[in-house]
Amino acid sequence: MRPPVSLVDGKPRGSLDVADRGLLYGDGLFETIRVENGCPCLWAAHMARLGLGAERLGMPAPDVVLLRSEADRLSAEAGDGDGVLRITLTRGVGQRGYRPPSPCLPTRIVTLYPGSGRSDRRVSERDGVRLTVCRMQLAEQPRLAGIKHLNRLEQVLARAEWDDPEIVDGIMTDSSGRAVCGTMSNFFVLDDSGLRTPRVDRCGVAGTVRALVMARAPSLGLPVREADMGLEELTQARALFITNALLGVLPAAALDARRYDPREIPRELIEAVRQAALQSESET
Amino acid sequence: MRPPVSLVDGKPRGSLDVADRGLLYGDGLFETIRVENGCPCLWAAHMARLGLGAERLGMPAPDVVLLRSEADRLSAEAGDGDGVLRITLTRGVGQRGYRPPSPCLPTRIVTLYPGSGRSDRRVSERDGVRLTVCRMQLAEQPRLAGIKHLNRLEQVLARAEWDDPEIVDGIMTDSSGRAVCGTMSNFFVLDDSGLRTPRVDRCGVAGTVRALVMARAPSLGLPVREADMGLEELTQARALFITNALLGVLPAAALDARRYDPREIPRELIEAVRQAALQSESET
Repeated sequence: MRPPVSLVDGKPRGSLDVADRGLLYGDGLFETIRVENGCPCLWAAHMARLGLGAERLGMPAPDVVLLRSEADRLSAEAGDGDGVLRITLTRGVGQRGYRPPSPCLPTRIVTLYPGSGRSDRRVSERDGVRLTVCRMQLAEQPRLAGIKHLNRLEQVLARAEWDDPEIVDGIMTDSSGRAVCGTMSNFFVLDDSGLRTPRVDRCGVAGTVRALVMARAPSLGLPVREADMGLEELTQARALFITNALLGVLPAAALDARRYDPREIPRELIEAVRQAALQSESET
Repeated sequence: MRPPVSLVDGKPRGSLDVADRGLLYGDGLFETIRVENGCPCLWAAHMARLGLGAERLGMPAPDVVLLRSEADRLSAEAGDGDGVLRITLTRGVGQRGYRPPSPCLPTRIVTLYPGSGRSDRRVSERDGVRLTVCRMQLAEQPRLAGIKHLNRLEQVLARAEWDDPEIVDGIMTDSSGRAVCGTMSNFFVLDDSGLRTPRVDRCGVAGTVRALVMARAPSLGLPVREADMGLEELTQARALFITNALLGVLPAAALDARRYDPREIPRELIEAVRQAALQSESET
């Protein structure tokens, strides 16, 4: 597989100033985007979240047109195939100390990791994936909830809890015991009344595919509501699936000892979300 | 003033791999150390905290001897004067994704910012400093409390709340309303019964000078205890001071509208802490 390639502020470069606040304080944002046939899926949704994040952190709004031209450039150089695009936007270099520099000259890092995960994803969509419950909990911080910032130690420590390559993700609870999300995904439970997914206003990330499911599921006869839920509601649910920008919709086959039938998740939903992700550019 | 100089993994370099997890996820630790006459103050205490942080994050223990030789090298090149040393230790470069790489090859970045703050500090010790109360609150995350990790967005957002250069720091509360620390300092309140300082086991950083005050104050007739406290206990206290590795002990002259007499903080305490910081190497 080809190695990743990066542009830092538009220049082909694999390194960053050690005085960048992205490193010093995790002072910045990122997006991880699926690329299919050279095209970044759900681009508009990713850019909307990046913009919201910049607003929350008090950073200048990202130049979305510039980011897209850089993403397209890397993609074209890599042969317009499949891959993963990571866009990182930091508050740039400044004086020592927490105080945000003024003016702020953000650093943008666009990295393309070539390689397709399509066949693996097809298998996971059919057979479902194994999940576990993490001991590591999420702190509740409304000011940073929903956005995708660079402070990810909670996710790193949660992901360090398992080695089993069969386990795809771990469900995290917040300090009040509510199940919130996976380390790298959102989740939905399915019952006779439809779909439920946790709120992400105290912690967690507002995933792009999560939003897509919430928008599309009702037209497939699956009403969706946001609700607080404990872990017992996941084990009691008829079915469970996770969502993630790279993986799409993946039914759970298991959450630790609890088994689910992945066929309970309607194929139409998985297909509708996949199609919508590919067509998302013309829509928004 | 001379520009900062850095060693990355021992090499004179000002840049870092864009795939370093310190940037990708804030996956690492740092220490900010005062240097006087070429000598890093409270070195052993800083290294102990760095070691504790590495243990908490599941990273290899830092090579303290190597870090010291790099710090001394930068200091000698800069003429063995005063300055600020920042040591950053990240989990190094790995595959994409939160999972910590195994084996882990940490990245170490040692940066020296030459320049003395001694005369400013003397003025602040005498006249006291102004403080404010931040609206931004700290989330409670026991797994990350006390250590000095790279996830510092809460401090960045808190520090962004004021522009007034006269205000030296802002006091932060946790989501339960307890006053915990400054954005870059710990604090103590002084009353007839002695000193009180908040616990740092749910959030906040266990400061090196905080520990020094706790160790030294009793022998000066000032018993110290850790206690939960609300903001009203700060305004009701007879006196208040902050502690920080670079600033030492600084009496508060004001917390927003509340004024304090900085002379209420015993000079012996300020002096004892300053002397101990300088002599700390022979002690531990």
